[in-house]
Amino acid sequence: MDPEKRYELIVRRLQEVLGGEAIKQILADGRNPKCYWGTAPTGKPHVGYFVPLTKIADFLRADVEVTILLADVHAFLDTLKSSFELAEYLELVEYRSQYYKHVLVAVFKSLGIPTSKLHFVQGSSFQYSKEYTMDNFKMCAKVTEHDARRAGAEVVKQDENPLLSGLLYPGMQALDEVYLKCDFQFGGVDQRKIFIHAETFLPKIGYPKRAHLMNEMVPGLTAGGKMSASDPNSKIDLLDPPEVVKRKIKSAFCEEGNIEANGPLSFVKAVLIPISTLRLDRQKERAEGGNTTLEDGLGDQRTFAADDAPEGSIFTISRPEKYGGSLHYTDFKALEQDFADKKIHPGDLKSAVESALNRLLAPIRKLYEENEEWQTVAEKAYPDPNAKAPAKKKKEKKYHPPPPGKGKNADKPEEPSQPSGNEPSPQPEAS
Amino acid sequence: MDPEKRYELIVRRLQEVLGGEAIKQILADGRNPKCYWGTAPTGKPHVGYFVPLTKIADFLRADVEVTILLADVHAFLDTLKSSFELAEYLELVEYRSQYYKHVLVAVFKSLGIPTSKLHFVQGSSFQYSKEYTMDNFKMCAKVTEHDARRAGAEVVKQDENPLLSGLLYPGMQALDEVYLKCDFQFGGVDQRKIFIHAETFLPKIGYPKRAHLMNEMVPGLTAGGKMSASDPNSKIDLLDPPEVVKRKIKSAFCEEGNIEANGPLSFVKAVLIPISTLRLDRQKERAEGGNTTLEDGLGDQRTFAADDAPEGSIFTISRPEKYGGSLHYTDFKALEQDFADKKIHPGDLKSAVESALNRLLAPIRKLYEENEEWQTVAEKAYPDPNAKAPAKKKKEKKYHPPPPGKGKNADKPEEPSQPSGNEPSPQPEAS
Repeated sequence: MDPEKRYELIVRRLQEVLGGEAIKQILADGRNPKCYWGTAPTGKPHVGYFVPLTKIADFLRADVEVTILLADVHAFLDTLKSSFELAEYLELVEYRSQYYKHVLVAVFKSLGIPTSKLHFVQGSSFQYSKEYTMDNFKMCAKVTEHDARRAGAEVVKQDENPLLSGLLYPGMQALDEVYLKCDFQFGGVDQRKIFIHAETFLPKIGYPKRAHLMNEMVPGLTAGGKMSASDPNSKIDLLDPPEVVKRKIKSAFCEEGNIEANGPLSFVKAVLIPISTLRLDRQKERAEGGNTTLEDGLGDQRTFAADDAPEGSIFTISRPEKYGGSLHYTDFKALEQDFADKKIHPGDLKSAVESALNRLLAPIRKLYEENEEWQTVAEKAYPDPNAKAPAKKKKEKKYHPPPPGKGKNADKPEEPSQPSGNEPSPQPEAS
Repeated sequence: MDPEKRYELIVRRLQEVLGGEAIKQILADGRNPKCYWGTAPTGKPHVGYFVPLTKIADFLRADVEVTILLADVHAFLDTLKSSFELAEYLELVEYRSQYYKHVLVAVFKSLGIPTSKLHFVQGSSFQYSKEYTMDNFKMCAKVTEHDARRAGAEVVKQDENPLLSGLLYPGMQALDEVYLKCDFQFGGVDQRKIFIHAETFLPKIGYPKRAHLMNEMVPGLTAGGKMSASDPNSKIDLLDPPEVVKRKIKSAFCEEGNIEANGPLSFVKAVLIPISTLRLDRQKERAEGGNTTLEDGLGDQRTFAADDAPEGSIFTISRPEKYGGSLHYTDFKALEQDFADKKIHPGDLKSAVESALNRLLAPIRKLYEENEEWQTVAEKAYPDPNAKAPAKKKKEKKYHPPPPGKGKNADKPEEPSQPSGNEPSPQPEAS
């Protein structure tokens, strides 16, 4: 593949590229750019993760060396003041790191993206080193509270009196670029301020700045805002069962003719079309007998176009003949225009999205159900907040009834005994 | 020595003690309390250092295990935004650490405080460890920007938009108590807010709080404020030569009858009387044939009372008979009262202070003059800001004079050549 084609593959469908010239130079030199994509293991990962993970397929096909950072220390640092026990929370973050790795590997496998070509790194494996810590102090000697607060505004939990942990977050993300030896960092556009921060401050402590590639954010299913782990109504988890997916999409905000605030429509653009394209590309490459970077995916690997759609189609809105028959699309623009023109009913769009998404999630759920280790990790990483603490065995009490007519209750009428379950006794008994 | 006497020795002459009960308990258990005193190697140490260092003699005599922390990382963190090169500054801090150790050892030796009983530790020897770094992150997950700013208000350089480095400072000083395994931290009362911060936040990350012992601050020689490394007029360096000491004391603010703002008088109380007492104690212990923790000091080790002063005197204002003769004191109170009553003239007080101080400094200067390594370190730790960079060897230019009447200056009168020294030529020569 020539350098121009490689670059095209690397940056296609991105919302923003900072420092593209540096990447072009690396490609012109015949080298393989190095990239890192990081995720802080906090809430359960949702279907918005398909966007960067699908994009990583493009990087691999362009021979980019990709490192996946499980940013466990960042997850720990990004915490609001709370009464949690720190030791407990550290343990939780460790389980969440494991959970995230399981999920990411499952998604990559389901998409046919070769995990053997990915380099997984846990933040804590290098962020506690002496060298890193010294660089962190240097960074802190250049970054003011104001700089750090502004950089983290869209990513780090903050209030008017931020914790120092959250203020360390952006500078350390910049240092990760150095320690993971990347030529560019990849992330969502919500990372933009942190990326600019890195470009500004790495040179101030003697390191060259890196390029930054940004994917768009998947809007939440409720009106307004991105899909967010902290708003359960806005998101669909990668392990949500089919009926939950159906319910959430059914109740998503999706107004006829409205293409501005439309979760399902945005999801088609950001997730379903790219994955459909990926599948079509693989089919073509295989048909042409060329080598392909992509492996077989898991589950139903057809595109999201119907089997009887014209060649090159990547999406189909299925509809009975009596309502005008199915609509097939080779790109998103045409579909969006039809929706704007009210040629597609929200109900039909939602059905198409639900069907595609459940096809996407089925193999991931299957991997989860077959993997006991992952299930155990899941329970520890996201303990049920409603689960009662295991009931302590009550100290057995021996009751020696007083002789009839004696004892403190001798004059009271006898009450029928009731099973108390796990409820504590309403009053302590006299001993 | 019984626990009560040991405690008395530990806390005497201090301005404030927080958590004394914990120390009493350790002594009652027959154990030796552990203490740490830290200093960040920034500006050249001044004579105010005599206060804590003399107090450390009391600790040793009460069998306290004393650690001296050369807080090099803190010195690095306590820096205002500036254009310095970080790598250069790190090197500077390393030399300053060495310089501080030389100075401290010299002062201890001059006072007869056994350095063999002191444990010197450099901050960078443990503050970059994984364990410490994890604890630092935990601390940062509990401390807000506001907490850190308030704690460092009197010690850490700050402006309205502080650097993150300065915000890390107080929490790390708290952690040092844990990592240096101390029962109490000792410092000036200017550290009070940082000490309270430590007592507040160590328990929040699972460590018990420590006791805090505070010495008073030595006021500067100019009116108002403490003696400060950053105000050269307010301080006398431990290596200032006799004539500089004389000049600085001569110009010190010292108003007749004024005992409120009076640098020389405060210096008598905070430094000279305690050292005189130390010397008297040693003389007594030796005379009684008892073992003493104190070694022989260096230089003239008589008290600051005249030889002909009554027994038990610790300070003398020498005066000719015609002005009323010398005044001898066994405690500070009486001297202070006499000054308030204008029975002591500022000039006589200043003379007494100058003479005593130069006696104190003479052996320290001598150690410096005999120690080439220390001198080399001094040059690197505090490079002369006025020193010119070594002149680059000028490229030799051959001058072929034009024949008479030719050349660009042919019509101008000839100027006499002047030696240029190291000054650059006012104009570049045409080549």
